[in-house]
Amino acid sequence: MQTSFVLMSVDQGIHDTTSVIDAAACGLSSGEGWSVRMQRLSGGLSDGVDVVWLNNGCTRIALLPTRGMGVWKAESAGLPLEWKSPVERPVNPAFVDPMRRGGIGWLDGFNELICRCGLGWNGAPGTDKITDESGKVVSEQFLPLHGRIANLPAHEVTVEIADDGAISVVGVVDESSMFGGRLRLISRLTTYPGSTSFEIMDEVRNPGSSPAEVEMLYHCNFGRPLLEGNSVLHIAASEIVPRNARAAEGIATWNRYTDPEPGYAEQVYFARPIADESGRGLAVLSNADADRGVAVRFDVDTLPWFSVWKNTQAEADGYCTGLEPGSSFPNLKTFERRHGRVISLPSDAEVTFRLAFTAAIDSEDVRQLVAEVAELQSGRPMVVTSKPRPDWCDC
Amino acid sequence: MQTSFVLMSVDQGIHDTTSVIDAAACGLSSGEGWSVRMQRLSGGLSDGVDVVWLNNGCTRIALLPTRGMGVWKAESAGLPLEWKSPVERPVNPAFVDPMRRGGIGWLDGFNELICRCGLGWNGAPGTDKITDESGKVVSEQFLPLHGRIANLPAHEVTVEIADDGAISVVGVVDESSMFGGRLRLISRLTTYPGSTSFEIMDEVRNPGSSPAEVEMLYHCNFGRPLLEGNSVLHIAASEIVPRNARAAEGIATWNRYTDPEPGYAEQVYFARPIADESGRGLAVLSNADADRGVAVRFDVDTLPWFSVWKNTQAEADGYCTGLEPGSSFPNLKTFERRHGRVISLPSDAEVTFRLAFTAAIDSEDVRQLVAEVAELQSGRPMVVTSKPRPDWCDC
Amino acid sequence: MQTSFVLMSVDQGIHDTTSVIDAAACGLSSGEGWSVRMQRLSGGLSDGVDVVWLNNGCTRIALLPTRGMGVWKAESAGLPLEWKSPVERPVNPAFVDPMRRGGIGWLDGFNELICRCGLGWNGAPGTDKITDESGKVVSEQFLPLHGRIANLPAHEVTVEIADDGAISVVGVVDESSMFGGRLRLISRLTTYPGSTSFEIMDEVRNPGSSPAEVEMLYHCNFGRPLLEGNSVLHIAASEIVPRNARAAEGIATWNRYTDPEPGYAEQVYFARPIADESGRGLAVLSNADADRGVAVRFDVDTLPWFSVWKNTQAEADGYCTGLEPGSSFPNLKTFERRHGRVISLPSDAEVTFRLAFTAAIDSEDVRQLVAEVAELQSGRPMVVTSKPRPDWCDC
Repeated sequence: MQTSFVLMSVDQGIHDTTSVIDAAACGLSSGEGWSVRMQRLSGGLSDGVDVVWLNNGCTRIALLPTRGMGVWKAESAGLPLEWKSPVERPVNPAFVDPMRRGGIGWLDGFNELICRCGLGWNGAPGTDKITDESGKVVSEQFLPLHGRIANLPAHEVTVEIADDGAISVVGVVDESSMFGGRLRLISRLTTYPGSTSFEIMDEVRNPGSSPAEVEMLYHCNFGRPLLEGNSVLHIAASEIVPRNARAAEGIATWNRYTDPEPGYAEQVYFARPIADESGRGLAVLSNADADRGVAVRFDVDTLPWFSVWKNTQAEADGYCTGLEPGSSFPNLKTFERRHGRVISLPSDAEVTFRLAFTAAIDSEDVRQLVAEVAELQSGRPMVVTSKPRPDWCDC
Repeated sequence: MQTSFVLMSVDQGIHDTTSVIDAAACGLSSGEGWSVRMQRLSGGLSDGVDVVWLNNGCTRIALLPTRGMGVWKAESAGLPLEWKSPVERPVNPAFVDPMRRGGIGWLDGFNELICRCGLGWNGAPGTDKITDESGKVVSEQFLPLHGRIANLPAHEVTVEIADDGAISVVGVVDESSMFGGRLRLISRLTTYPGSTSFEIMDEVRNPGSSPAEVEMLYHCNFGRPLLEGNSVLHIAASEIVPRNARAAEGIATWNRYTDPEPGYAEQVYFARPIADESGRGLAVLSNADADRGVAVRFDVDTLPWFSVWKNTQAEADGYCTGLEPGSSFPNLKTFERRHGRVISLPSDAEVTFRLAFTAAIDSEDVRQLVAEVAELQSGRPMVVTSKPRPDWCDC
Repeated sequence: MQTSFVLMSVDQGIHDTTSVIDAAACGLSSGEGWSVRMQRLSGGLSDGVDVVWLNNGCTRIALLPTRGMGVWKAESAGLPLEWKSPVERPVNPAFVDPMRRGGIGWLDGFNELICRCGLGWNGAPGTDKITDESGKVVSEQFLPLHGRIANLPAHEVTVEIADDGAISVVGVVDESSMFGGRLRLISRLTTYPGSTSFEIMDEVRNPGSSPAEVEMLYHCNFGRPLLEGNSVLHIAASEIVPRNARAAEGIATWNRYTDPEPGYAEQVYFARPIADESGRGLAVLSNADADRGVAVRFDVDTLPWFSVWKNTQAEADGYCTGLEPGSSFPNLKTFERRHGRVISLPSDAEVTFRLAFTAAIDSEDVRQLVAEVAELQSGRPMVVTSKPRPDWCDC
């Protein structure tokens, strides 16, 4: 059995906010309580935002087709995976002007658990200059913060139920412009009934006629209850580098968190993750008592760089940490290009990014995940540098 | 009895454009013909704009949740309170780019009777520079005209009917961004069945962790029939100052209006209003025959500055006058800060602004209001200055 | 009989996506299969876009009220009139930021068969400077690419069925701002049951109090099947000029097309069209076999300048040609003003633009149209210049 349901298709004129896709809808007798449905929000800055609620019977995931298939928030076995941004509700991209505040308008809509930064670029705003071999600038373009994809709505959303019970939500988002290249994201989020895990498989295609540059970064953000004083980040990595002088101040405690500190200025650490035999990296955030946590797994092949965003400022201002596997570091694209961290995707080619979340809901879960990180690290040194690396850090 | 009806709540998934809230809906036998309902506009630049129609049986008020709880227009006992902007219909903020035309894109959506300018700033567009004690610029940000609030949609709208018959529409609007502060407007417009008055009570809260700057100005705009040749503005004020050389030209007639004059360049006068015993200032606009008018009352404590915007240009271009109580003058925030007219709102604190309108529908109404202004002024000099004051006027 | 149906009216609260207007709805017994209806798209960047589907029984036309009454695409007797932009679906202007990419954000929504560039300006982005007689700059404003009208939604759409069977869709679009002038487009697209033709009659009015500048250009775009290697453009013109050095390279083949060429840089030719006795110019695009084509007719009086946009780049990037009758050439407005090609429309006046399409669906159709062009040209020289003309080309 492979059953497919179209929740949204601009081309087919479908926008279905009434159907509930569940075992019964699939003609199955027993469903373990899973269901998928789409809701449209009305009012506020959320007006016109579609939310796909995927409940696998244990884990509830809220996807945002309107915001590039981002994941607003999730909850697994009662454990909330979320953070509290000053921007309290999903924001329709129609209300976001990326050029605001000198190019950081992206922050006006930033509140998701998983928010993609890409596809054409991510990172700090600035003027990207492309030079020819002689060093002459042949093109320049101002790139606002973190790219377009989080503010582009999917034009197609499908739910697929596989023979093995896998529940997938597939969304298609185009990032294109006349004379501006074209990239297509085909995002598939998959989970199983009763599971505390879900996986995202993103294909980014280049339907254009010439090679296209791609930068992808998964801004995975956690607040309470996982983040608190004495929460710890466990990651298997060969190198840890502070992004700038401010981060260098805290290098001794780069992977430990504090309670909210009003006025805390963010600290960012860059890492080179270690892959397991299947090519996956692993980062685990555990709470103070090590009885709740989350594992973030990702393909190191296509996401070889990892940013740790420590933002333990006041609760009211967005107490949060970001675990961010990326194809690049979130520096200005010019810098990343110079250091070989921008993907050049040939015409008609595609690159696949994989990211998976697992909720750890008791001490044993956390213990196992931490042990897994340790095993991955085992025998491989983790070099923690006290100063920014000039080829990693554009500071 | 206190009866509450939710017309809109993003959080609760409510957006109700079918209910009519009236005496019957409240279980009352007699209703004096009042009702409240919400309509969603479709098409044009108004697409997706919600209008709350509040009819107290005598006065009809059109509120715009989609535009920061502004008041589009009103009509009291047959007297229209409105003006005719070249922008003919309410504009969804999704279609407004404040950065357009060098930062005056706000004008693309400007046509309300009451339009808030704020919350973080108002006034002329420009680059706001914040300096430290040594005069060094520590931050700068381009601020487009008149702030964000008029282009931010409410995410919650409630109708409350009180025991004493008061009908209130309460809207909540967030002006926030990650790393950009957060301010919340809780706006309550109240009227009574059969009344020719309505009052706005706005609470602006700072849910952020550190003090936030607030500037609020109520752009209250009137065209025909109240504005015509020989209309007069009566205001109790201790000082009147022309904003610039252009306004100085007309200082002798600063409070009298002419018929539309094609090519007329706006003239703005700044005033320091006088408060009555309850702390309220009063401005009255009367028509030529002094048989129709409107009173604008406001708390002088939080709205100590008043701008008179004379814009008696051609009818087709927006023949209009603005009576504008403010926490500041509409200069660039840098200038207002320097002169102590920017509110610093502590974390978790709130500031309340009050504004009330009363329609004067016959000669006796107008006579009483004009007498009230005279009494308020009585014994207190009104200094009318012929030149801009350097600490008021950024010219 | 003149029957009128309102599909959309913001003022009347009408937005009708259920009615089908056809012969039966008009009380006619025989309808030749024509119908008109409006659809609202949901999802993707098309969310909230209204499409009016006009089918005259032979020709199907998709109009876009949400995009300034542009024509998305058409099909006549099985012949598609369209092109394939990298932007695959109609884009709601709420998602278009004209200031993006240095002022070419307009291209984010560009994919129509007929897209208006105007009303206040069109052409390349840049800072328009207005100087007084002494040459002093008295005003300057940055004008992004191709003006506002394609990204302004109609607030009123009516269908009219005339006694003679003519089917018209009339849309009203306002391009106005407080202190920014006001222009109104009343666009009427008319066709007859069974016809392979349709005509657009656009009235642009100036309801403002002073003269307004107007620039209008019809960006009529064709891809396959009409455009292919060896397609030919036939136009009656007295002069053909390459826009710049790049266009000059191809002057020998200015009216012949190639197969898609990856990396092809656009070539633009400017022409002065010849009018027939009724004042109409004619351009005909025919395919390689001269058995399919399209005729574009236009009033030379108000559209005296014609641009040929050759954009035979890779199929995936938007293989396309634009036939563009205009009141100006698409240069920066400053340049066009200097050379007398900007309309000054007096207060309360209007200017009417007429544009008609006819599909040629067999060899005989094409032969007749080509003969018509030849006859129009007959006896009048066509001067083909090898270099840009300094008064036409801002290069």
